[in-house]
Amino acid sequence: MAKTSAQPYKGTRDFLPIDVRRRAFVTAKIRAVYESHGFAPLETPALERLDTLLGKYGEEGDQLLFKVLLRGQPLVEGIREAAAHVGDATNLVEGRSGTTAPRAEPMLADVGLRYDLTVPLARVYAAHQGKLPAIFKRYQIQPVWRADTPGKGRFREFYQCDVDVCGSSSLLVEADVLAAAAEALVSLGFDNFELRINHRALLRALVEHAGIDVAKEAEAITAVDKLDKVGAEGVIRELEARGVAPAATQRLLALLSDEQGTVGRVSLDRIAEAMTSHAHGSRAVAELREVFRLSQLTAAGKYLRFDLSLARGLGYYTGCIFEIAVPDLGSSMGGGGRYDGLIGMFLGREVPACGLSLGLERILVVMAERNMYPETLGGADALLAATSAARFDAALSLAQTLREAGLKIDLIPRELAPGKLRKQADDEGVRAAIWVEEDPARGQSVWLRTSGETQHGVASEAIAKLLAR
Amino acid sequence: MAKTSAQPYKGTRDFLPIDVRRRAFVTAKIRAVYESHGFAPLETPALERLDTLLGKYGEEGDQLLFKVLLRGQPLVEGIREAAAHVGDATNLVEGRSGTTAPRAEPMLADVGLRYDLTVPLARVYAAHQGKLPAIFKRYQIQPVWRADTPGKGRFREFYQCDVDVCGSSSLLVEADVLAAAAEALVSLGFDNFELRINHRALLRALVEHAGIDVAKEAEAITAVDKLDKVGAEGVIRELEARGVAPAATQRLLALLSDEQGTVGRVSLDRIAEAMTSHAHGSRAVAELREVFRLSQLTAAGKYLRFDLSLARGLGYYTGCIFEIAVPDLGSSMGGGGRYDGLIGMFLGREVPACGLSLGLERILVVMAERNMYPETLGGADALLAATSAARFDAALSLAQTLREAGLKIDLIPRELAPGKLRKQADDEGVRAAIWVEEDPARGQSVWLRTSGETQHGVASEAIAKLLAR
Repeated sequence: MAKTSAQPYKGTRDFLPIDVRRRAFVTAKIRAVYESHGFAPLETPALERLDTLLGKYGEEGDQLLFKVLLRGQPLVEGIREAAAHVGDATNLVEGRSGTTAPRAEPMLADVGLRYDLTVPLARVYAAHQGKLPAIFKRYQIQPVWRADTPGKGRFREFYQCDVDVCGSSSLLVEADVLAAAAEALVSLGFDNFELRINHRALLRALVEHAGIDVAKEAEAITAVDKLDKVGAEGVIRELEARGVAPAATQRLLALLSDEQGTVGRVSLDRIAEAMTSHAHGSRAVAELREVFRLSQLTAAGKYLRFDLSLARGLGYYTGCIFEIAVPDLGSSMGGGGRYDGLIGMFLGREVPACGLSLGLERILVVMAERNMYPETLGGADALLAATSAARFDAALSLAQTLREAGLKIDLIPRELAPGKLRKQADDEGVRAAIWVEEDPARGQSVWLRTSGETQHGVASEAIAKLLAR
Repeated sequence: MAKTSAQPYKGTRDFLPIDVRRRAFVTAKIRAVYESHGFAPLETPALERLDTLLGKYGEEGDQLLFKVLLRGQPLVEGIREAAAHVGDATNLVEGRSGTTAPRAEPMLADVGLRYDLTVPLARVYAAHQGKLPAIFKRYQIQPVWRADTPGKGRFREFYQCDVDVCGSSSLLVEADVLAAAAEALVSLGFDNFELRINHRALLRALVEHAGIDVAKEAEAITAVDKLDKVGAEGVIRELEARGVAPAATQRLLALLSDEQGTVGRVSLDRIAEAMTSHAHGSRAVAELREVFRLSQLTAAGKYLRFDLSLARGLGYYTGCIFEIAVPDLGSSMGGGGRYDGLIGMFLGREVPACGLSLGLERILVVMAERNMYPETLGGADALLAATSAARFDAALSLAQTLREAGLKIDLIPRELAPGKLRKQADDEGVRAAIWVEEDPARGQSVWLRTSGETQHGVASEAIAKLLAR
C-alpha cells in the first residue's frame, strides 16, 4: 500500500497522552498563580495580518515569521508580481538572514502565524478598548510559531505563558509580574532560579557614557547581551568588528566590571555611582532600586539579581527588562520587561505596559530532567472488558453505571482474556482491571483486580466505593 | 501617530476574558466526560506537512487549506517555477473553487495548517505505534483552520472536540463515542438534541439499488445530503444536472420515502426490507441495528435517530456516520463516523477507526442564545488598592498575604479613591473591594466592602476568612 510519511513537520512535536498530562499539570499551576494575582485570561487567533506582525520584532524576527500563502486570484497576481522582482537579482538579499526576496514576499502572503503573545495583546488592547478596564491585567497561555532552525529545546511551535499589565506605568506592575513568575516557579517545585533584571534606559546611558556613537547603540547592546556566552574577549572582538573605537569599548567594559575587574558582575550601587551625572541613567537606577525594594515584600525578592549585561533581543522594550535563569539550562526559562511604545503602534497614543513570559517547553525540559513530575497524572480508574462477545452488553451497562458513579472507565471494545487485561492494566499503570466472565454457577459474574488482589461476584456499588478517590 | 489597524484577521476572533472563561467552562465539561470514558488526551502541531493534508478531504477540502509560504532560497526557486505555470493560462482553474493555480501552489508552500483533528490522529497512530496501545482511545480539543468564506457561526479558526478509537472494528466503539457525545451535551444542559445516524455502505447500496451509475455514486450521495436544505425538488434538479436518469432518480427518492411518501423519513425497518436482497446493504442495516441496540444501554439511546439522507461531506468515512442536530441551529453541532481506510494511508496497512467531533463554536453560540452559562465563571475575589502612593507597600504586602491564604487578589497598580475602587468592583462583578487608607487615628487602616457593607480596621486573617469560598 502506498503511504504518506507519518512524521510531524520538522521542529514540531506530537504530544502523546503522558506529554499532554504533564503540560496540563504545569499550565494549571501557572494559571492558578496568574489568577491569584487577579490576571484575566485572553486568547487571540493564531493567524494575524502581516501588517500587525511586521516591523515589531526587529529584522531577524520579521524573517522568522511563518507567512500564509494568498488564496485564489490574488495568489495568481502575486506570483506574477513576485516573479518580476525575483527576475531582478538586485532585489535578493544574500547572507545569513538572506536568500529571501523581501520585496516579493508581501505580494504572496497576507497573514502570518503569531510570533509571540505580546504584539497580539497590544493589538487587542487597541481594538477592544471600550470593553476592557483602563488597566488591563491579562494572562495568556498559547502556542507561538517561529521559522527557526530546530535544535535542543528550540522548536518551531512552542507555548508561552504570558502575564502583562497594560495601562499603568507604576513600578508596582514590575513587582507584581515578577512576584507572579516567582510564585509560579516555586509552585512547580523550582527553588534555585534567578530573576535577572536590568533596564533598557540604563543600557543606553551606559553606551552613551562610554562614548559609543548613538548610531551604534543597538549593536553595542546586542554585543553586551552575548557577554554570558562569548566572554569579555568575544565582546571586544564583536565591537571591533562593528567599528566601535577600542577606547570606547574599554570604557564600556570598565562600566560593566566589579571592583575586582570581573566584567559583567557590576553591582547596582557601583553603576549608580558611575551614573550620578547622567539623568536618564540615574532615573533607570532609581527605578531598579524601587523594584528591588518592592520585591522584598513579595515572593520575587529572594530571587531577584541585577545583571547589567542583560539586554533581551526583542526591539520593543523601553524600561525594566527581566530574564529567568536556572543553573542547568543554557538558555533562559522566560523573560520580559516594560514596553511603553508598542500599544501606541496600534492605538495612535502611547499606553504604558509591562509583562513577562514563561517558556513552557524549557520548564518541561528541566522538570523532566530533574524528575519533578508527580508519579500519576490522571488516566482511567479501571480497564473494563468482557471475556466473550456475548458479554459486551453487560460490560457496556457496567461501564455506564460506574461512569455515572464518577469513575473513569476505559471499556475495551473487544473480548479479552483476564490475564491479558490484567497485563494491559499493569502496562498502562491503571490501578484496577474489571472483567465480565461466564461463570458456570452464576451464569455471569463481574471480577475485579486491584493491587494484586482478585475478587469475583462484585456488585457495581462495591466497585464504585472501592475505587472512589 | 501613524498606526496599524488593530482588527483581527477576517474570520478569526479575539477571546476576551469572559469569552475565554465560557470556552474553558464548556471544554472542561466535555473533557471530563471524555476522560470518564477512558479516553486519553492527544495534542498535535498546528503545522502539518502538505503531503499529510492533501488528498484526504476531497477537492473542496484541499482548496480550503491554509498553506505556509516557503522560506529562504526555496521560495525564490518556487516563485520562478510558479511563474512559469501561471504564465500559461491553461494551468489555471476558473470558477468557484478555482482562480487558484494548483500546479503552482505546491512549489510555493511546504506545510499547511491542520484542517481537522482526524487526519493528524491517523498520522500519529502510524508514527507512534510502538508507544501506543493497539486500541488507542484518544480525545483532542484544539483549533483547526479553513480558508472558508466567514459567515454566521462559520470561522476560519475554530475549535473541535474530538473523541476517537483506533484499532477496533467493534460496534462497541460506535456506541461508546455516541454515549460520550450524549453525556457531554447533557452535562452542558442540552436535552433536545438528536444524534442522527446513517451508514456509508447503506448509501452506496441505495444508489446501486436505484440503478445509478457507479461513477456518479459520490455525486448522488452529495445530492441526497442536501435533502434537508433543498427538498425533494432540489435533489431532483441536482441529480438531473449531474446527468442521472429520471427513472433512477425516482427510484432513489422512493427508497428514501416513508409509507406516506415523505422523502427522507424512511424508517430503518422499511429500508431493511428494500435491502434484503443486497448483501452490503443488509450488512449495513444489521450494523445500524446493533448500534441502536447497544445504545439503549447508554445515555445515547434516547437521542439516536436513523436518517437515511445523512451523508457527511468528508471523503474518508466508510461505515456508520453521525451528525448532531439541535432544533435552533441550522447547521450541525458535531458529527463523525467510521473511517477504516484513513490510517492505512500513513501506515501501509488498514487499521479500523471511528470517532466523533463536537464543534465548540456552535455549542457556544447555542448556549449564549439560550442563556445556559452559570452567572459567575471565575475572576478575582477582590480588588485591592491604596488611596495614596505612600501606601503602595502596605497594599502589596496585604495582597501577598491574602494570595498566600488562597484568594485571588487584583492589586490595582495606582492610587485610587475608595469610591472609584468600589465602582470598579461593581462594574467588573468582583464581590469585594479592599483599600489601604490613611487614618488620622491609626496611621493606616484596611477597609473592606462586601455585599454593600463597609468595615474598617480589618485584619488580613479576617478578610481571608470572610472571602473564602
